[in-house]
This record gives sequence, structure tokens and C-alpha cells, in this order.
Amino acid sequence: MRELYHEELDSITDSLVEMATLVGSAVGRATTALLDADLELAESVISDDETVDALHRNLDERAIMLLARQQPVATDLRLLVTSLRMSADLERSGDLAQHLAKLARLRHPECAVPRDLRDTVQEMGRLAQSLMARTAEVLVSHDLDTALQLERDDDRMDELHRTIFRHLMDDRWQRGAEAAVDATLAGRYYERFGDHAVAVARDVVYLVTGRHADDMAPAAPVTT
Amino acid sequence: MRELYHEELDSITDSLVEMATLVGSAVGRATTALLDADLELAESVISDDETVDALHRNLDERAIMLLARQQPVATDLRLLVTSLRMSADLERSGDLAQHLAKLARLRHPECAVPRDLRDTVQEMGRLAQSLMARTAEVLVSHDLDTALQLERDDDRMDELHRTIFRHLMDDRWQRGAEAAVDATLAGRYYERFGDHAVAVARDVVYLVTGRHADDMAPAAPVTT
Repeated sequence: MRELYHEELDSITDSLVEMATLVGSAVGRATTALLDADLELAESVISDDETVDALHRNLDERAIMLLARQQPVATDLRLLVTSLRMSADLERSGDLAQHLAKLARLRHPECAVPRDLRDTVQEMGRLAQSLMARTAEVLVSHDLDTALQLERDDDRMDELHRTIFRHLMDDRWQRGAEAAVDATLAGRYYERFGDHAVAVARDVVYLVTGRHADDMAPAAPVTT
Repeated sequence: MRELYHEELDSITDSLVEMATLVGSAVGRATTALLDADLELAESVISDDETVDALHRNLDERAIMLLARQQPVATDLRLLVTSLRMSADLERSGDLAQHLAKLARLRHPECAVPRDLRDTVQEMGRLAQSLMARTAEVLVSHDLDTALQLERDDDRMDELHRTIFRHLMDDRWQRGAEAAVDATLAGRYYERFGDHAVAVARDVVYLVTGRHADDMAPAAPVTT
């Protein structure tokens, strides 16, 4: 009975890792779809998000069932409670990757990203994917240094986000409102994606230490 | 002992209602600050968000403590688990109201909302405030009809959000990229605010019935 219980706890972590892996891949593919105006790829990102949503709901049901049946305490309780929160963050990240793909689809066959923002968007996409890949890693390794490092690496995302705004506000911006709207939304989606990856890593810190990431390192506050 | 426990459960609901009331007021004041370019009001919305953040953290700690100490089952367990989720949604709504106020502050003494979008933004603000006021109500009344109605009323928010985009994409839009960026962000903040209010109402449905809102009414899916 207890063994089965611990298997079930492990399987919750497995599902979180699976979700993080899927949304990490999704944001990478969404970025390619955006930059290459690749409709087929965009469609696949959009439809694949269903898998993430299903994992999310299934994970929540299992966690609530375990809370009810096993009456866990201490670490197990913390695992289940934070899993619900992490699962919500990962589900939301999947939505954001899907939003990026929808932007690519909306503008197809045009490219939603103007030439002069390509490098910035490409870096945001790579960074988003890397943040989420390391979040997946941290979910398994419980490595606190990596978890706390993620927050600092996300600062670069905020910087890139500001780069987009600076660019749009520049008097030389001649691409009109439509391109400005697209760039604003894309920037916001990547920035929020990064925030969710960091939120999951922060929950791992809480899970392992029982303390909040804020109390552990003099890091900058997460952008909200 | 049991009496104290039930008082603590009630106090969790009280905190949720307090959070919903505060963020409802915040989004109303942020809207006024946006439309009137009122810097003082914007500053007050920005600094008041600390109260919501403190309530959020405090509520989560109490809920987790109750989960650990009281080993609740059935309805009480559901209350605590959904409280964590609702608290996160309300905290996030507070952030979005704060973002709107920051937009007002950023453009002050100019007005961040161009004249031809004033009516739309005003309606979005009123709707956001009304959705959240009713969410606060539903948290107390557990009235399922009102909870399910909220989701349908949020459709109007999505419609207003689309109105903004249509407006920005119109060839007659002559206000440049900066105003387009502001309007895009403001529209997105209101739309997400509405989503979070609806998410809390959906959690009340789950809390009362043990079933998900999706399975109860042929409503449109929540915009993500």
C-alpha cells in the first residue's frame, strides 16, 4: 500500500517533467513557426497543446485524490500542494506557446516578426526553451543552485522584452500598428513563459527547503 | 479544537473575499487613472497591490498548515485545495490591475488611451470590476447560477478585446506604434483579468459540486 503510494507520488513528478518537456518543445517549435512563417508547424503546436491540458487535469485529479486518501504530511504534503501549482504554471506556459503559434498562423503566409526584430525573437525563443528544459531538469534533480540560477537567467528575458519596446517606440519604426501589436504580444508571451518556468523552479526550492526562494538569495523579484 | 478549525476555514474564505474586493477596486481605480491620466491614483493602485500580495502569501500558509494539521477530507479538502488556486488567480488579477496603473504612470502627463478607444477601455474597466465584484459575491453565496453566468458575461470582455485589435488594424489608425503598444497591452490585461475572475468562479462551482464547470453547462471555453 505504502509502496503504491510512493509510486503514485513519483508518477506525479514524472507528469510534471513530461509537461515541462512538452511545453519546452512547443515554445521552440512555435518560435520556428513564427520566424519561418511555417503554417504546418504552427498547427502542430496548436493541436499538441491538448496533450498538455490533459496531463494537467489528470495530474490535478491524482494529486487531490492522494491528498484525500493518504493524508500526507511534511514533504509529501508539500509535494502535492506545490505540484498543483506547478501543473497550473506549466499548463499556462503551454497556452503561451500556443498563442505564439496562433500569431504565426494568423499572419501566414506573411511573417509575423519584422526583419529587424528577428534576432531578438530568436533569442527569446531559445532562452524560453532553455529555461524550461532546465526547469524539467530541476524537477528531477532538485538542484537548488540551478533552480536559483534560473531566476537570474530570466532577467535576460526581461531585457529582451524591453528591447522590443524600445524598438517599437523608436521614431524609425515604420512598420505600422499591425506589426507593433504582433511584436508587443509576442514579447509579452515569451516574457510570461519565462516567468512561469521560474515559478516552477521556485516551487522546487520551496519543495526541497520549505522556504521561499525570495528568502534564500538576494535575487531580483520576478516580473509580474 | 474542531470549532477553531472551522473558524480557520471560514477565515480563508474571508481572505479570498477580501482579495477579490481589493482587486475589484484596484481595476476600477486603474481604469480611472488610465482614462484621466491621474498619476496620484495610479500610484495608489501600484502601492496597494502589496496588501493583496501579503494576503495571498498569508492565505497560502494558513491553507497549507490546515492541510498538514487537520488532514481534512471531502468538502474541507476541496475548499483548501481550491483556495490555493483561487488565491493565485486573485493575486495575479491584482498584478494586472497594477500593470494598468503602471501604464497610466508611464505615459503621464499624456493619456495612455487614445480618444477613439476611450469608450472601449471604459467598458472593459467597468466589466472587469463587475466580474470581480460578482466573483466576491459567489465566494460567499456559492450561487451556481451566478458563477456560471460570469463565464458568459466574460464573453463580452473577449469581444471588447477584439474591438481593440480591429481598431488598431484599421488603416485609419494614425496614432503610431507607441499608442498601439499601449492599447494592445491594456486590452490584454483586461482580458486576462476577466479570465482570472471567471477561473475563481469556476473553482467555486468545483468546490460546491465536485464537478468542473465545463461539465455542467454548454458554455464557451475560457479564453487562454
